[in-house]
Amino acid sequence: MSNLKSKEIRLKSRPDGMPSKANFDLVEVPVPAPKAGEFIVRNAYMSVDPYMRGRMVDRESYVPPFQIGEALTGGAVGQVIESQNPSYKVGDYVQHMLGWREIALIGSDPMSAMATMKVDPSIAPIQSYLGALGMPGLTAYAGLLRIGALKEGETVFVSAASGAVGAIVCQIAKNKGCFVVGSAGSDDKCQWLKDKARVDATINYKKFATEEALTAELKRLAPKGIDVYFENVGGIHLTAALSNMRAKGRVVMCGMIEQYNNTAPAPGPWNIIMTIPLGLRIEGFVVSNHFDLMGDFLRDMGQWIKAGKMTWHETIVDGIETAPEAFLGLFKGANFGKMLVRVGPDKAV
Amino acid sequence: MSNLKSKEIRLKSRPDGMPSKANFDLVEVPVPAPKAGEFIVRNAYMSVDPYMRGRMVDRESYVPPFQIGEALTGGAVGQVIESQNPSYKVGDYVQHMLGWREIALIGSDPMSAMATMKVDPSIAPIQSYLGALGMPGLTAYAGLLRIGALKEGETVFVSAASGAVGAIVCQIAKNKGCFVVGSAGSDDKCQWLKDKARVDATINYKKFATEEALTAELKRLAPKGIDVYFENVGGIHLTAALSNMRAKGRVVMCGMIEQYNNTAPAPGPWNIIMTIPLGLRIEGFVVSNHFDLMGDFLRDMGQWIKAGKMTWHETIVDGIETAPEAFLGLFKGANFGKMLVRVGPDKAV
Repeated sequence: MSNLKSKEIRLKSRPDGMPSKANFDLVEVPVPAPKAGEFIVRNAYMSVDPYMRGRMVDRESYVPPFQIGEALTGGAVGQVIESQNPSYKVGDYVQHMLGWREIALIGSDPMSAMATMKVDPSIAPIQSYLGALGMPGLTAYAGLLRIGALKEGETVFVSAASGAVGAIVCQIAKNKGCFVVGSAGSDDKCQWLKDKARVDATINYKKFATEEALTAELKRLAPKGIDVYFENVGGIHLTAALSNMRAKGRVVMCGMIEQYNNTAPAPGPWNIIMTIPLGLRIEGFVVSNHFDLMGDFLRDMGQWIKAGKMTWHETIVDGIETAPEAFLGLFKGANFGKMLVRVGPDKAV
Repeated sequence: MSNLKSKEIRLKSRPDGMPSKANFDLVEVPVPAPKAGEFIVRNAYMSVDPYMRGRMVDRESYVPPFQIGEALTGGAVGQVIESQNPSYKVGDYVQHMLGWREIALIGSDPMSAMATMKVDPSIAPIQSYLGALGMPGLTAYAGLLRIGALKEGETVFVSAASGAVGAIVCQIAKNKGCFVVGSAGSDDKCQWLKDKARVDATINYKKFATEEALTAELKRLAPKGIDVYFENVGGIHLTAALSNMRAKGRVVMCGMIEQYNNTAPAPGPWNIIMTIPLGLRIEGFVVSNHFDLMGDFLRDMGQWIKAGKMTWHETIVDGIETAPEAFLGLFKGANFGKMLVRVGPDKAV
């Protein structure tokens, strides 16, 4: 034993529909001492992400389901406090996939090695590596540029535009000389999108709550139509976008948060037939298939940050015990930008 | 005047829902004498195609709508009987877009020139240029190979598989070494698909009329999943296909005949979210954007026909007055393969 104890969040039961705190357990466990090749990270921040909802369902998918009675996993960042791995020294900051706990023992197996990387706290605050400089940022980058094949001067519509992924999508599009329309769930978020993320036009979708209203507002804001729709939401956002696409438009299917907690099938887009006359492409992706873009992504993001052309917003809650509630908040729009849980101090040694 | 008279079919009124014969008029008109650059074709066959239903609606689209009181247009093939155009001699066989009439005066404008081409009756019967060797064939070729990016050995699912487009899709896929599952609306059609078009497995969709049944049958016939779904139908065919796609699969959106006569929006695919974990691509197209493939298409089709690796079925009805009924039959599966109307003799001079 390392003499360390760590609180962790376990999946107690599989949620049916919207999860609740009752689906989670908080447990304190001893942390084993690291063996050869292993090391221990004191997590400073852990990430809660919408995709984790899918892992709570017991089904075959691109990531294996969470198991009942086991600690959840996910992105986390922190400092190495003990190490039997020569590549990771005490004091190093690392990003890894053993979130949902205070202290993580990083294994020496190849999977652990692949999911772990050092981060540079001099470029941006360490929690950025769970957001703008991490998976959500790479998701935005790969989705918009590779899947969406964005071209300069095009018109882009982004749903959940102030979210962890959406806000980066908006700014990459602006940096590529595009006209950007973003939708978000409050006037504050819309204001931030305009003032900070340089979004050209915004929609507070709560004020345009029917398909007809959202379709009309989108048409008003982008009368010539949309070239790329970056889909984070689903429902009437997708149908309204399809009704406003230009010929040869692309729909980047990144997420459909609106339906992750559905207990019955959500209605599909009745107007998918528009793909035929307009030659539209609707394409989905998961970021893990695009890790080869990581180098380009970090290079471009570094330049944009330096040039003052990339910003982001975070919602940080404190304490490992708040993690389930932070996660649930994602489905209610409680987050403004990237939702993070602070589970320890930035500096642990 | 040329002293010729031609019967033609005009759009009398715009259909609401399923069209009826009452939406059409049969009129006899004099044919003007050809001026410089013009020529006259005695149509032998005219094509009826599902896409024409869309042109009966008064809306902006990739082709302008038919106008009430005017003759319809569409693919036709016949022999030149009078000519003031040095490129087209009396006796030449040509394919053009002035169907729905017995005799066509081909104009000298650039649009007419672009839509008209000579056909070679020594390669295949002239009506083939309205089907396998014409737009339906090119639609199959461009859709499967360019949009679907078909690779050797993949599994392909084709709806309306015995139709003018579907039957060619099936055989191109077979010629590319793929495993092909085809759905059609009768046991006869399914038998033909197996015996003549070399389709590996067939579904008489009338016997699997619910989404659950169709999904299960598809899974039974292609247990490892589908790489390319060629969509001609819509409805439960699309949802069943999406529920059976393999990672990186492609859905080629060619047509959705099931909903062309709908008066209310058809339900969309509830499982479009599968695009995300599986990285699926759903892409629509119209053949007119792929005319650049015509050379490759005719070369490959010529070789396949010669090698006995391409066949097709036609349903031919007689007389211009039967054209509206032939068109309506498309929506009832009355056609077996390409639906054609014989409006005159093969040999006119």
